[in-house]
Amino acid sequence: MTFHTRLKVRFGDEDHARIVYFPRFFHFFHCAFEDFFEAEIHPYRESLDAQVGWPAVHAEADFSSPLRFGDLVDFGVSVERVGKSSATFLYEGKKVVDGVLEEGLVVRGRIVVACIEMGSMRAQAIPDRYRAVFERHLISPA
Amino acid sequence: MTFHTRLKVRFGDEDHARIVYFPRFFHFFHCAFEDFFEAEIHPYRESLDAQVGWPAVHAEADFSSPLRFGDLVDFGVSVERVGKSSATFLYEGKKVVDGVLEEGLVVRGRIVVACIEMGSMRAQAIPDRYRAVFERHLISPA
Amino acid sequence: MTFHTRLKVRFGDEDHARIVYFPRFFHFFHCAFEDFFEAEIHPYRESLDAQVGWPAVHAEADFSSPLRFGDLVDFGVSVERVGKSSATFLYEGKKVVDGVLEEGLVVRGRIVVACIEMGSMRAQAIPDRYRAVFERHLISPA
Amino acid sequence: MTFHTRLKVRFGDEDHARIVYFPRFFHFFHCAFEDFFEAEIHPYRESLDAQVGWPAVHAEADFSSPLRFGDLVDFGVSVERVGKSSATFLYEGKKVVDGVLEEGLVVRGRIVVACIEMGSMRAQAIPDRYRAVFERHLISPA
Repeated sequence: MTFHTRLKVRFGDEDHARIVYFPRFFHFFHCAFEDFFEAEIHPYRESLDAQVGWPAVHAEADFSSPLRFGDLVDFGVSVERVGKSSATFLYEGKKVVDGVLEEGLVVRGRIVVACIEMGSMRAQAIPDRYRAVFERHLISPA
Repeated sequence: MTFHTRLKVRFGDEDHARIVYFPRFFHFFHCAFEDFFEAEIHPYRESLDAQVGWPAVHAEADFSSPLRFGDLVDFGVSVERVGKSSATFLYEGKKVVDGVLEEGLVVRGRIVVACIEMGSMRAQAIPDRYRAVFERHLISPA
Repeated sequence: MTFHTRLKVRFGDEDHARIVYFPRFFHFFHCAFEDFFEAEIHPYRESLDAQVGWPAVHAEADFSSPLRFGDLVDFGVSVERVGKSSATFLYEGKKVVDGVLEEGLVVRGRIVVACIEMGSMRAQAIPDRYRAVFERHLISPA
Repeated sequence: MTFHTRLKVRFGDEDHARIVYFPRFFHFFHCAFEDFFEAEIHPYRESLDAQVGWPAVHAEADFSSPLRFGDLVDFGVSVERVGKSSATFLYEGKKVVDGVLEEGLVVRGRIVVACIEMGSMRAQAIPDRYRAVFERHLISPA
């Protein structure tokens, strides 16, 4: 099951080459991650307030086609792997043109997050509440 | 006495119009503020670690001429007013071209910071250590 | 007539003091400006594509109370003055808590934009199409 | 041969968890890329003005240890591969503490850039001038 959220490309997201500055894509992925938490579990802030943090330990992305100011982008969020104390999220961005989702991907990202106890910043086992939701979003559940 | 620091305009600082996105100027002012602390008092981080914070309560800027990627900018930092628990900082940005400071201002900013106790976020009197330095940088000392 | 739009405070919008980094407020104002154009005139991008640009020449803000990650903010956008080739926009931010707009302002901003011809970056008279909309949003129309 | 540049972690680079917001690392890599061009070839802006652009088509990073406000980071820039019209850059970040470079990596990034003609955004062969410099920075030159 893939979660979807939509983000607008803003005037300030472009760089000197007049396409989205590539580090912004990772910001978009994080916004989609926050929206996923809010819709599927609880506001991301509540996870952190409960001392359950999710820092990125690995991030990667393939940029297939540029985004520009004014574009509306649909981000599909799914889970590739759920480990004991880490999980791998997939982000697939597609443009929405006149209300219709385009075929081709503009970007595909993969972020590995560790589950940590916020105070000590030490790894902890993913609590069941989160594990259950992550597993429901596995791209190819067993 | 005016403190000076230099900042590079980066590829990602421009917006769709290919000039520096105006909110970035306020980021530049904050970077100059950090550099001022580091050079004249102690690293800004140490002030915060000692529970002395300086949030902006008012910010303003006049943009005289656009900045572009590749520009090197000199920021002059001075103090316009030191109150009991707030102070007003001035930032004047000029381009550096071939090592020479240009005449005209590209931007002039004024930021009023409150002095707060970090934990409670309540106003506190500016500690003497900071007051002395701020007063040395007053634009027209008594 | 005041235009309203809502923005989420994101995880990455906070700074070391765990409140929204103040330059981000000016980014929020710009996002609200883009939303105003899209809802009331046409997508902001279309204005720029038609060579009608709106760079900020002056910006100011008063920060009354901090914003934090997870806050939802309503920005009211209105117009204080429409001149021959510039206009002054007002932005008033209030928190939305449990779907209800709070009384107190968290931030109040004022941005003066010039109307320019994008190619030459020279001032031009505000075209009637925009003037009419700006005047409809004047806070105290004649 | 590895090129080195140093960047300061700024107050606004941290996120709600009080560590550097991970998308900022990709901004740091880009700043290091700009500094590499400026020191080893010519200012990056001149490459773009000559219609030779270098958009990222792939980006990845492993985050070994968090960075915090006040940290000074040394970024080593080297080249892993030079192809006909793309190249792979490596970025290795280490903290500088009391003027001394620490042993352990805080971050390791790999960015694949395409060489394009800026107007058409079509791939072009890497011009000799750039190829020569990239090859001098290959991590294991033939």
